[in-house]
Amino acid sequence: MKVFLECYPCFLRQALDCAKISSDDPKIHKEAVDSVMKCLLSCDADSTPPQIAKGIYSELKRVTGNPDPYYEIRKEDNANMLAKYDEFKERVAEAKDGIRAALRLAVAGNILDDGTGSKEEHQEIGGIEFFLNQAPAEEEIQEIKDAFKKAKSLLYLGDNSGEIVADKILIEKLKEEYPSLDITFVVRGEPVINDIIMEDAFEVGITDLCEVIDNGDSSPGTDLSSCSEEFLEAYDRADMIISKGQGNYETLSGSKDSRIFYLLVAKCPVIARDLETEQGTMIIRRVKN
Amino acid sequence: MKVFLECYPCFLRQALDCAKISSDDPKIHKEAVDSVMKCLLSCDADSTPPQIAKGIYSELKRVTGNPDPYYEIRKEDNANMLAKYDEFKERVAEAKDGIRAALRLAVAGNILDDGTGSKEEHQEIGGIEFFLNQAPAEEEIQEIKDAFKKAKSLLYLGDNSGEIVADKILIEKLKEEYPSLDITFVVRGEPVINDIIMEDAFEVGITDLCEVIDNGDSSPGTDLSSCSEEFLEAYDRADMIISKGQGNYETLSGSKDSRIFYLLVAKCPVIARDLETEQGTMIIRRVKN
Repeated sequence: MKVFLECYPCFLRQALDCAKISSDDPKIHKEAVDSVMKCLLSCDADSTPPQIAKGIYSELKRVTGNPDPYYEIRKEDNANMLAKYDEFKERVAEAKDGIRAALRLAVAGNILDDGTGSKEEHQEIGGIEFFLNQAPAEEEIQEIKDAFKKAKSLLYLGDNSGEIVADKILIEKLKEEYPSLDITFVVRGEPVINDIIMEDAFEVGITDLCEVIDNGDSSPGTDLSSCSEEFLEAYDRADMIISKGQGNYETLSGSKDSRIFYLLVAKCPVIARDLETEQGTMIIRRVKN
Repeated sequence: MKVFLECYPCFLRQALDCAKISSDDPKIHKEAVDSVMKCLLSCDADSTPPQIAKGIYSELKRVTGNPDPYYEIRKEDNANMLAKYDEFKERVAEAKDGIRAALRLAVAGNILDDGTGSKEEHQEIGGIEFFLNQAPAEEEIQEIKDAFKKAKSLLYLGDNSGEIVADKILIEKLKEEYPSLDITFVVRGEPVINDIIMEDAFEVGITDLCEVIDNGDSSPGTDLSSCSEEFLEAYDRADMIISKGQGNYETLSGSKDSRIFYLLVAKCPVIARDLETEQGTMIIRRVKN
């Protein structure tokens, strides 16, 4: 998905949020916003939002002198969700259809995003409860369950901190229901916003469940033109790909690769329009080839 | 009030809104957003938001080739509010305290603003009903009523289209209750967003009620450093000044001039913080000297 001009105000807001996390100095805040406007003035309008965000967050790391402004927020997101792990796990265990319950939890977990909108709107765990109560997309759930049954290997592209705990619960359930399915979980190559890196996978214990690799890139998505050889080999090998969240969708949405299932909450109006859905909708969608 | 960095994303959003009103050409949209980023990169950080907006809307007029992108919207805003004129007028006539009712209507009318937020959020007349039902600020109403009694002349700085109909109803009531009060109503010198110009004052009939002058400037506020001699003479002469809306507040808020009463709805978080109030609050506030 190419960047839309509607994304530009959002990039400026993110720049200011990020600068404020790193510094109280108004000069740094101004420099951060100015440097992002310069990025936007020089960027290729055919880029995806995560490709542009990669340049922006690289500039923000330079301006703020902070290589990982969202470090504390990631820790907090993970801790908050880990505190709910037992409760969520129990709900999935008690559900009539455990895979369905775990899938819905994993999609709802995508609401925990520090890039889109304010903390108040999106980052609260309470938001998950709201999404868990939404009407399910039964056909889409059936389609993905059929794919799990047929696949020998699954590449699971993770997205945000906090959300990764919901991913863990889904992976545990997948291992239970489809024990022969070989699962590889993917994190970003470098810190960017609150997107997960290897440390987060260790922290929540996904590394004990399945192979975890990073994609070798620092964009908040999966930009295949910038990912590592190791990741691309795993990508090519997989029978089935789960792409969690907006950033992964934004970078892969041009694909005709029907191995891909997008799992996300359409959090911003631009994404919702691109997906031809309403803002706030839970999406499980297989790519049509 | 100096511009805040939080205003920058809002300026970009406004640029895109304005470009889309004027043209369907994505190249024009991109040029509009880019030209506004260039304005923001070169602007004086000590400027008020309306001073910056003046430069931005001048650029937008150039890029879009449209000298008055909000022309149709102003017509529509005025027509929609004029259709409610009789109903509002009757409510004021039936109120126990007519001045209080007209004041509250005039402040509530300030919700009709095409600069802040989306049309859905702010521009609907339904929004007025919401504000009319808010708890009144009785002390502030008493203070402004006392000032009306004492003043010989009132300079009334108007703000937005649509809202001007509520201003008209207040002015009619003021003339009824304080017949010796000499009222001058002020419009902007040139079209900018949906701020009122002389044509709007004619259209809703304020020109039949009192003297109407323009301030000789094209900023969406009252930037005294750029206003005409004629306006500044009227400003100096007035015993009392009503400053409607955010733009007038943003340009005059540094003043210690206790002739000024700000009447507005604090529509954006930046203004609300500056006024030390909650977003969405109806404000009637006299300047303390």
